[in-house]
Amino acid sequence: MKKTLKEMLKFIDGEIQGDAETEISGVGGVENVKSNEITFAQNKEFFKLAEAKAGAIIVDNDLAERIETSKPLLIVDNPRFSFAQIASLFVFKPYHSQGISKKAYIDDSVKLGKNLSIHPNVVIEAGAEIGDNVVLGPGVYIGHNVKIGEDSILHPNVVVEYDSKLGKRVEVHPSTTIGCEGYGFEMGKDAYIKVPQMGNVIIQDDVEIGANVTIDRAATGSTIIGKGTKIDNLVHIAHNVEVGRNCLIIAQVGIAGSAKIGNKVTIAGKSGVVGHITVGDNTTLAANSVITNNVSANSFVSGYPAHDHRMERRIKASRKKLPDLVKKVRKLEKKVELLESKLNKEG
Amino acid sequence: MKKTLKEMLKFIDGEIQGDAETEISGVGGVENVKSNEITFAQNKEFFKLAEAKAGAIIVDNDLAERIETSKPLLIVDNPRFSFAQIASLFVFKPYHSQGISKKAYIDDSVKLGKNLSIHPNVVIEAGAEIGDNVVLGPGVYIGHNVKIGEDSILHPNVVVEYDSKLGKRVEVHPSTTIGCEGYGFEMGKDAYIKVPQMGNVIIQDDVEIGANVTIDRAATGSTIIGKGTKIDNLVHIAHNVEVGRNCLIIAQVGIAGSAKIGNKVTIAGKSGVVGHITVGDNTTLAANSVITNNVSANSFVSGYPAHDHRMERRIKASRKKLPDLVKKVRKLEKKVELLESKLNKEG
Amino acid sequence: MKKTLKEMLKFIDGEIQGDAETEISGVGGVENVKSNEITFAQNKEFFKLAEAKAGAIIVDNDLAERIETSKPLLIVDNPRFSFAQIASLFVFKPYHSQGISKKAYIDDSVKLGKNLSIHPNVVIEAGAEIGDNVVLGPGVYIGHNVKIGEDSILHPNVVVEYDSKLGKRVEVHPSTTIGCEGYGFEMGKDAYIKVPQMGNVIIQDDVEIGANVTIDRAATGSTIIGKGTKIDNLVHIAHNVEVGRNCLIIAQVGIAGSAKIGNKVTIAGKSGVVGHITVGDNTTLAANSVITNNVSANSFVSGYPAHDHRMERRIKASRKKLPDLVKKVRKLEKKVELLESKLNKEG
Repeated sequence: MKKTLKEMLKFIDGEIQGDAETEISGVGGVENVKSNEITFAQNKEFFKLAEAKAGAIIVDNDLAERIETSKPLLIVDNPRFSFAQIASLFVFKPYHSQGISKKAYIDDSVKLGKNLSIHPNVVIEAGAEIGDNVVLGPGVYIGHNVKIGEDSILHPNVVVEYDSKLGKRVEVHPSTTIGCEGYGFEMGKDAYIKVPQMGNVIIQDDVEIGANVTIDRAATGSTIIGKGTKIDNLVHIAHNVEVGRNCLIIAQVGIAGSAKIGNKVTIAGKSGVVGHITVGDNTTLAANSVITNNVSANSFVSGYPAHDHRMERRIKASRKKLPDLVKKVRKLEKKVELLESKLNKEG
Repeated sequence: MKKTLKEMLKFIDGEIQGDAETEISGVGGVENVKSNEITFAQNKEFFKLAEAKAGAIIVDNDLAERIETSKPLLIVDNPRFSFAQIASLFVFKPYHSQGISKKAYIDDSVKLGKNLSIHPNVVIEAGAEIGDNVVLGPGVYIGHNVKIGEDSILHPNVVVEYDSKLGKRVEVHPSTTIGCEGYGFEMGKDAYIKVPQMGNVIIQDDVEIGANVTIDRAATGSTIIGKGTKIDNLVHIAHNVEVGRNCLIIAQVGIAGSAKIGNKVTIAGKSGVVGHITVGDNTTLAANSVITNNVSANSFVSGYPAHDHRMERRIKASRKKLPDLVKKVRKLEKKVELLESKLNKEG
Repeated sequence: MKKTLKEMLKFIDGEIQGDAETEISGVGGVENVKSNEITFAQNKEFFKLAEAKAGAIIVDNDLAERIETSKPLLIVDNPRFSFAQIASLFVFKPYHSQGISKKAYIDDSVKLGKNLSIHPNVVIEAGAEIGDNVVLGPGVYIGHNVKIGEDSILHPNVVVEYDSKLGKRVEVHPSTTIGCEGYGFEMGKDAYIKVPQMGNVIIQDDVEIGANVTIDRAATGSTIIGKGTKIDNLVHIAHNVEVGRNCLIIAQVGIAGSAKIGNKVTIAGKSGVVGHITVGDNTTLAANSVITNNVSANSFVSGYPAHDHRMERRIKASRKKLPDLVKKVRKLEKKVELLESKLNKEG
């Protein structure tokens, strides 16, 4: 596939300097870009490297004004961002354009959109609705009354249990489970009984979910993942959790039942959030930490229990001194005792 | 579906006050219950809320005696528990009543019970036995000589490797792996060789297992999950682990090889248990902790290494004082030194 | 299946003492070995137990010289290792010898080796190459241009996304995802955009990967798992990670993007490695720890942040004294104050 710089302006905002008909057939990093590819540069040094090899270069206004070059330029506000957008034009899209496989099982009552890619071994149960341009990879399971919004992509072996609602442009990576039952049991005389999980999961538009993730259905009401939020692999999200918009939830994080996470919250890898608490907007939780209480907006927290990140850094630094501190205090106690006895004798 | 209060007494123990023929078509929480639904109340305040909306209310004896109402009541020992039981009558059962799909592959030697729901893309290998009323969701794999007890439900894409034995009324959520090989390797001259994992997994009656869980087969003998134990999502249970009856094992917990967990043990989210140790009955391990030594019965432990929970709470509270403590001790050292020199001078 | 001791010498290095035609039909631990099975013993005590029951016994030269027995012996360098090798001859191999199922979907362009076991519901996309003797369990997905080396085994529902390259004798357990997109997003004005993940995953020869593991494709270039490395269940390996040869990566470990792990590194359960750092050869990271900085070769580290393991042990031991330490320091402060005031008065 080839695209001219001019054609790229259909997908990104920017200006061209040089030949707008320059044909580009891929993207590359500054170190390994080829002469028919486009790359980006954020300073003069990287620009020189790029200039020697690339077919065209993405830069911002600032840099464009400070350089002279015969190389075609795409001048944009945020070169990294525009580069990512352009790269996505060239990346391989593995599950598209297959139509509906005869090896898929689709209930007669399912409402199917246009231009679908439904692969072998897909199962779609009664009452489901599949939007236009949706891709369902091999082995995907779509439960009763599930709704998948247009332009969504579900990779192989994803399971979406009944009543779940996925928005538009949602992408779900392999073997992830959406809408499985929340974990709720009540002890009777001598055995647990399940508390029925009668709610569902709502995934809003533009959410991306990694591989082997689990998102539980609500006990009643909905577990909600807000618009634009991105979830990494092996994350667990329990019943009735609400995650806001544009959050980043990194690998192996766990969020316990009924926690409310604000917008633009980042939760780094292996961290946890306990149930029934609230995390304010724009908050960051560092890696391998656990939030155990409400956290206000714009916080940067870490540790277990998580508190101010700078405090936790000081604690972690002091921690190494602890064995010595124990010895020092023992020594001080003896010295003080000695001083006391001396003074008492004298007094 | 509708059930009268009278019909509900087939499923739960209790008494009716008011019209036993009251028809109920669902359950709801006290805030959103509808006039044709049943809810429960545990005190007068909630009862008032419920009375305004619900079709019937579940209460205990105590509360029933303290209120006057024309609303039909179900009077029981444990309202939360009975509510859960009744709710389960109304909850959607997605994989039932399908018969045996022609798109399933079942070896001729498999022993099939009555009233099965075997969905498309199920594979059942030679020598397996499937009990009455078992539901196998789409994409489920049942290995050689596996036994699935009656009334069990396996959700889509569950994998049960050869020789595993599942009891009655076992429920397994999507993409969980039961009976995969334990992790055992022996270093030779310059490469690891696998220690063959020749045992199996035994899941006893009434066990529930979440989504994307892994339970390894034993090296020799059996990995065992005891009757009534409930396992949450993304849990790892290694080879030769034995978990007792009625345990709760919350999300993302890991239990290392040959650990023995007693009955009614609770292991909270993200916690771990190291290999070859014993955890006594009725013990609770708090979240994000690691048990590294034998724990006696009826303990409440936390931390890493896990020890008495109250002690760990005190440590966590003191931890914040550590940076200050370092400074204070440095100050004290100087002061004591000064005192010593003064006293020596005076002496 | 039966094998004589003589036949076993085709698979292991060693010598026979006694009847080389002794027929063996399985292996067993010293406690439960049967008269037609072989076991191993590493000292006289275990040898006596073994001698009473086993059909033959594996020992090393040292032990062989110190005992007298009429029992057939296999004399080897490392009895545990040789026992594991022999056990693997007898262990059940569930997915072999099925040929190519008619219920598999294989693109016409796929290059298929000889002697394959391709099970129902397998999907193999265009351009893939499958080596001789490969086993693909039910529900396995093989993406475009994937290469699977000879003698590899993929258990049910494994997903291998496009362009991934697996070496020879690779084994992958159920529901594991290889080659899913790395986690890379760039914030624009008010939404994240995906940074296209255009690289791939390379799994070298003799690697074993547990169940429900995720290994992400590189942004550009390759995520690499070195020859002979063994990965346990529920592990996450991010984009552009490079893991060396003969590493052990235990359950629930997470390795963040672009980390470089040397050869013969052991990372124990639930531990993490942050992105963009280097871990030297032969290093061990204890369980439930996090490496946050480069670690030199031959280290034994633990804690968060991980540092020298003995230091961490001392810190963990001192930690219990922290609440008391706080009290002691408060007491000392008062005493020193008193001493100071006394001295000042006297002075």
